[in-house]
Amino acid sequence: MDLKKDASKADKLEDLALRRGFFNQASEIYGGAGGLYDYGYLGTLVKRKFENTWRKHFLSEQSMFEIETTTLMPESVFVASGHIKNFLDPTTRCKGCGTIHRADHIIEEFLHETFEGLSTEKLTEIIRKHRIKCPKCKGELEDAATVNMMFPVTIGVGEGIKTYLRPETAQGVYVNFKRSFEQLRKKLPMGLALVGKAYRNEISPRNLLIRMREFTQAELQIFFDPQHIDKHEKFHDIENYKLVLYSIADRKSNTITEISCSDAVKKLHLPQFYVYYLAKIQKFYSEVLRVPKQAFRFKELNEEERAFYNKIHWDIEIFVESAGGWKECGGLHYRTDHDLSGHQKISKQDLSVNIDGRSFIPHVLELSFGVDRNIYALLDLAYREEGDRIVLSLPEAVTPFDAALFPLVNKDNIPQKAEEVKKFLKMKDLSIFYDESGSIGKRYRRMDEIGVVNCVTVDHQSLQDNTVTVRNRDTMLQTRVKIENMFRKVEF
Amino acid sequence: MDLKKDASKADKLEDLALRRGFFNQASEIYGGAGGLYDYGYLGTLVKRKFENTWRKHFLSEQSMFEIETTTLMPESVFVASGHIKNFLDPTTRCKGCGTIHRADHIIEEFLHETFEGLSTEKLTEIIRKHRIKCPKCKGELEDAATVNMMFPVTIGVGEGIKTYLRPETAQGVYVNFKRSFEQLRKKLPMGLALVGKAYRNEISPRNLLIRMREFTQAELQIFFDPQHIDKHEKFHDIENYKLVLYSIADRKSNTITEISCSDAVKKLHLPQFYVYYLAKIQKFYSEVLRVPKQAFRFKELNEEERAFYNKIHWDIEIFVESAGGWKECGGLHYRTDHDLSGHQKISKQDLSVNIDGRSFIPHVLELSFGVDRNIYALLDLAYREEGDRIVLSLPEAVTPFDAALFPLVNKDNIPQKAEEVKKFLKMKDLSIFYDESGSIGKRYRRMDEIGVVNCVTVDHQSLQDNTVTVRNRDTMLQTRVKIENMFRKVEF
Repeated sequence: MDLKKDASKADKLEDLALRRGFFNQASEIYGGAGGLYDYGYLGTLVKRKFENTWRKHFLSEQSMFEIETTTLMPESVFVASGHIKNFLDPTTRCKGCGTIHRADHIIEEFLHETFEGLSTEKLTEIIRKHRIKCPKCKGELEDAATVNMMFPVTIGVGEGIKTYLRPETAQGVYVNFKRSFEQLRKKLPMGLALVGKAYRNEISPRNLLIRMREFTQAELQIFFDPQHIDKHEKFHDIENYKLVLYSIADRKSNTITEISCSDAVKKLHLPQFYVYYLAKIQKFYSEVLRVPKQAFRFKELNEEERAFYNKIHWDIEIFVESAGGWKECGGLHYRTDHDLSGHQKISKQDLSVNIDGRSFIPHVLELSFGVDRNIYALLDLAYREEGDRIVLSLPEAVTPFDAALFPLVNKDNIPQKAEEVKKFLKMKDLSIFYDESGSIGKRYRRMDEIGVVNCVTVDHQSLQDNTVTVRNRDTMLQTRVKIENMFRKVEF
Repeated sequence: MDLKKDASKADKLEDLALRRGFFNQASEIYGGAGGLYDYGYLGTLVKRKFENTWRKHFLSEQSMFEIETTTLMPESVFVASGHIKNFLDPTTRCKGCGTIHRADHIIEEFLHETFEGLSTEKLTEIIRKHRIKCPKCKGELEDAATVNMMFPVTIGVGEGIKTYLRPETAQGVYVNFKRSFEQLRKKLPMGLALVGKAYRNEISPRNLLIRMREFTQAELQIFFDPQHIDKHEKFHDIENYKLVLYSIADRKSNTITEISCSDAVKKLHLPQFYVYYLAKIQKFYSEVLRVPKQAFRFKELNEEERAFYNKIHWDIEIFVESAGGWKECGGLHYRTDHDLSGHQKISKQDLSVNIDGRSFIPHVLELSFGVDRNIYALLDLAYREEGDRIVLSLPEAVTPFDAALFPLVNKDNIPQKAEEVKKFLKMKDLSIFYDESGSIGKRYRRMDEIGVVNCVTVDHQSLQDNTVTVRNRDTMLQTRVKIENMFRKVEF
């Protein structure tokens, strides 16, 4: 795989998405609304599978559970979390046409460099220094300012209660920590996951599903005893596993460091507890989602880039050709006791725990994933053209259907036999797409471009000897197999 | 089962929910916010299972798919749907303390009768006639007025774009109808489901999960050719199936009509296409969710009660003791072409289809379910006390875990053997709760009150002959079985 940027690929992907049903602009018959996308029937199947695959990978360990909390949360929550004060985007208004731009993005586009976490003063300085103008009308730009990215919503009638649509799922977990801790019988570490919507009033939504105003996060907050940060009981399982890191030191040379987990602890002084989850995450991408090695890395953020409360912060980055290169698709954040202490202070509830005779506020390790970004990245990685054949080589874990089923012709009792095969496959809990129209070649092409791995054809021979042909998406090879031997799951 | 109302049961259910992790007030460390509830780890497991069970039951037919759309939708959508104009709740303000009440609820509480769909004039008249006062301060009430129940949200900066949080998932499907129709190769009937959040600014949220401001719907919109309403190709499968109906005529006598599907068509003049889905819904409740027959009915709404665009409207009602009796948990709505015609008019997009040489706007049959209400109803139906034993006799389809697993003691190699059994059960895709603390009797009780059907205990004999005891929640009987024979799935 070559790492290259390819803007035309974005158009091809969007065309496929619209034609077949992966995603489209929300409310598009009304012209859409910036930063809002809907999933069509195929995109929804992929998204459900992604979420369930994520759950299976991250929540199968002891003491990892999921909760579901409201997207509307009272203002105090975000006073405590710091979002009211700090969740700001830098803007600059054009003196000519009045358009409000995102200040750092405008600079980025002009200088082809990334600028994150700079102060408004610094941004204004850069705008002035390089004489950057409004990209729309070439007008002069005002000094950079900031705007809060949360959406306020008043509930109730009359004065009502001031709430916000949550900008991250994490806060829903933190406000439920104490109750869940009691329900789960006061043990640490305890993981609470949340898969759900979050909302940010992005000034410049972009790159299709990459930066949206309404999006889905899958986050896992692991509460643990800070005295145990240098230990993880399963560390020996992964001590020789090689991590792909892009540290701050690597940036200058633009190289990658491959390093074993035990060396990451010894040489990079990362805590065992943190490194264990780096490995867990990387395995999710390499083994479950089959992301090619060259397209995945952990990127260390420097102090300016990361939130002030994150003591250690590495982004999960995937190389997304159609979106301009490396994109943040998640992260592993050591948030210390920032959140629980904040909530304890504002809510005046005691959020400390008693364990082994000590009383303390647990620390938090957050595994955070942008579901839509991941799906977009997977579609981008999977898309390829082979002559006139479009192939979406999605990993089996997220293909929209487990198999396609074709009757060769619609006569001679073949549809009846196909119906029988369908029942058999459904008994195996496999999801099936049934297609009876067009030549078999055409039906194969239809499945190739939506990523279905196996196409099962029922033909005249099937009536004789209970066999079918199974054709593979990637090799294009056809094999004849006994119906009863298809997709046999490994039994214990 | 006796049908009775039991307010004290609400407290018991809430106590269990809080103690064990089904649900609690959202952001409760901040005192909560009316009408917002979070799901704990057990509630979340139940909810995920309910949603997947629902999908399996309703989307397994040909041409039934799911899509996912944004909760924020531009204003025009709701101009077209009529929500801006008609989605109003009647209110009355107290002249004394200023509290705004829901007018029909205040009357309901005073007269112990249901009042839905009455005009503000009519409501004012009743308030005056019965001299109904403010329940809070006994002050005089103002004339009834109305307030729109949607939450407005402005997206973007500066003037921005006016959107609303959707008050029902249905509109997300309608605005995507044309594109999905093309992606699914222009066939009718076509079903598009949506499982997701909806938001309503209820003036008086109540009954825990029954009436909330943020809630989850599972809705299926079936688009069909209105000329085919009197036929459903699978009608012969259900023609003798007995429906439980509470028609407008039944109200006076307060009786139930049990009637076969074919008689519902012949004698009640309901269309075949509609009756087929009444049966499909009732089977979901009786066969999958195991709701007792006496606790389920379809209630026909009269013209005043139903939305003006619903040509036929029967609610799905479940008897919920702790919430005061029969509660609407869903409905089957024949919405005609109201929605697509509305969107065609406002969006100026052609939403008609061409089939068999005819051009027409498809009609819509909507199967609508309030997920949270259903979950609450199932918890209510399942809750019972037997001496000091609390049992939650949830149907297997929605129990939080497929099984519990106990090592009898934490020594003698028994935990190791239990680990082996756990692996075996996980290979079978069964979800397991592992509990190693307290007496076995205590562990049984813990599982009984959260609804786990099977408790598997690994003991000394297990080490000898590879057997375990399996104890049943409802019968409390213990059976010794070979590990390899546990939970064997029926194979084709």
